[in-house]
Amino acid sequence: MKLVKAGVLLIGDELLSGRTQDTNLATIATFLGALGVSVGEARVLPDDADTITQTVRAFSEQFDYVFTTGGIGPTHDDITADCIASAFGLGISEREDALESLRQRYTDDELNAARRRMARIPDGASLIANPVSQAPGFQTQNVFTLAGVPQIMRGMLADIGHRIEGGAKTYQISVTCTGIGEGDAAAPLAALEAIHPSVSIGSYPFFNDELRGVSFVARGQDEVQLNRVKTALNALVDSLTQG
Amino acid sequence: MKLVKAGVLLIGDELLSGRTQDTNLATIATFLGALGVSVGEARVLPDDADTITQTVRAFSEQFDYVFTTGGIGPTHDDITADCIASAFGLGISEREDALESLRQRYTDDELNAARRRMARIPDGASLIANPVSQAPGFQTQNVFTLAGVPQIMRGMLADIGHRIEGGAKTYQISVTCTGIGEGDAAAPLAALEAIHPSVSIGSYPFFNDELRGVSFVARGQDEVQLNRVKTALNALVDSLTQG
Repeated sequence: MKLVKAGVLLIGDELLSGRTQDTNLATIATFLGALGVSVGEARVLPDDADTITQTVRAFSEQFDYVFTTGGIGPTHDDITADCIASAFGLGISEREDALESLRQRYTDDELNAARRRMARIPDGASLIANPVSQAPGFQTQNVFTLAGVPQIMRGMLADIGHRIEGGAKTYQISVTCTGIGEGDAAAPLAALEAIHPSVSIGSYPFFNDELRGVSFVARGQDEVQLNRVKTALNALVDSLTQG
Repeated sequence: MKLVKAGVLLIGDELLSGRTQDTNLATIATFLGALGVSVGEARVLPDDADTITQTVRAFSEQFDYVFTTGGIGPTHDDITADCIASAFGLGISEREDALESLRQRYTDDELNAARRRMARIPDGASLIANPVSQAPGFQTQNVFTLAGVPQIMRGMLADIGHRIEGGAKTYQISVTCTGIGEGDAAAPLAALEAIHPSVSIGSYPFFNDELRGVSFVARGQDEVQLNRVKTALNALVDSLTQG
């Protein structure tokens, strides 16, 4: 089975100023991993139309799927929908089905010009349901445009899975061990990866006041090879901690 | 005063798989903000030498400063130092001062070939002290190469500030308000930003079971303008919540 790759664009000045801690990348990566899609690259972009438009276009060509988060709310700095339209040379206008969705949440009085902006959808896009706050996301070709607020973004993922043609699922095993350093295991780890080229092995040290240790994480599409690596990692940890 | 911009490269497969939640971007952005440097873009890159090398080169040209995190440990997937050398066409070799730093932490027995890799530094780079685990970071031209483990990365920032020529400091004010939605404020917010073009205003909705509301955040270099915006935002919130 082929590998399927996605690119992720996290849009918003607040992510670059340090004000807001992104959590959407990890949520999307975990969601896609279960579908056999791996994230190849992510970018955090400012609220700048040219940057967003050019990057959407480039990512749409480079990756099988693209996910954007942020910039589809009612305010003047919410420019993602216009950038997506521009990236694909599409028009954009208020859509009745999107407006209908907003009417589930807002009274006619509340549905002012600003909120109606959330019904502006690039031509030909299909809506992505928003069970949390009703303003829809949308899919344009291979690009999924989602909200930035994590609760809403997660809600939208429920309407995505059936649109994804996944690839070879990546499995992951991990072996964690305290009392040794990363450097103790580096040479045998490299040897192990050389024997099992289909498996990628990473080591992640952790530190705190009480404890130091390493987590070894192996990922790959071949479960048989992965289980062999797990056995070898356990043996390696035994030999290092008894040494 | 001129605006000074930085680019940030977060390196590591584990950030793209969903295994590890990055927190380094927000730490670096907050640190730089206090020095009058704003982050213009961040990318999360896989452990792929070509991608890292090309992106370092492009970011070094595009931004005043570049920060990389991750990939400078002792294992086979730690390739950042080689990529930095390659990006600038520099040689790379084991350096005595870096080795000396490692000797503060490791006995001769512990300082195996894998750990000695952490003393490989691109030619001409200056070391960045690591008070947590002694394996140094390094500065190559305008690129600062730091560890990925957040505790270690934060420790290295202490040896960075004096190397940065900051620009106009960006100030930030925020006004938070419950019981209204983002769309209620969108039109007056756009008007406010039009009157104060030097100030950038964002609105960030929040939701939970009990509460909904919006935080308005204004950022700019001109404190006088910024205080006028704060007064106007408070008046706006009063009018919306009393309405």
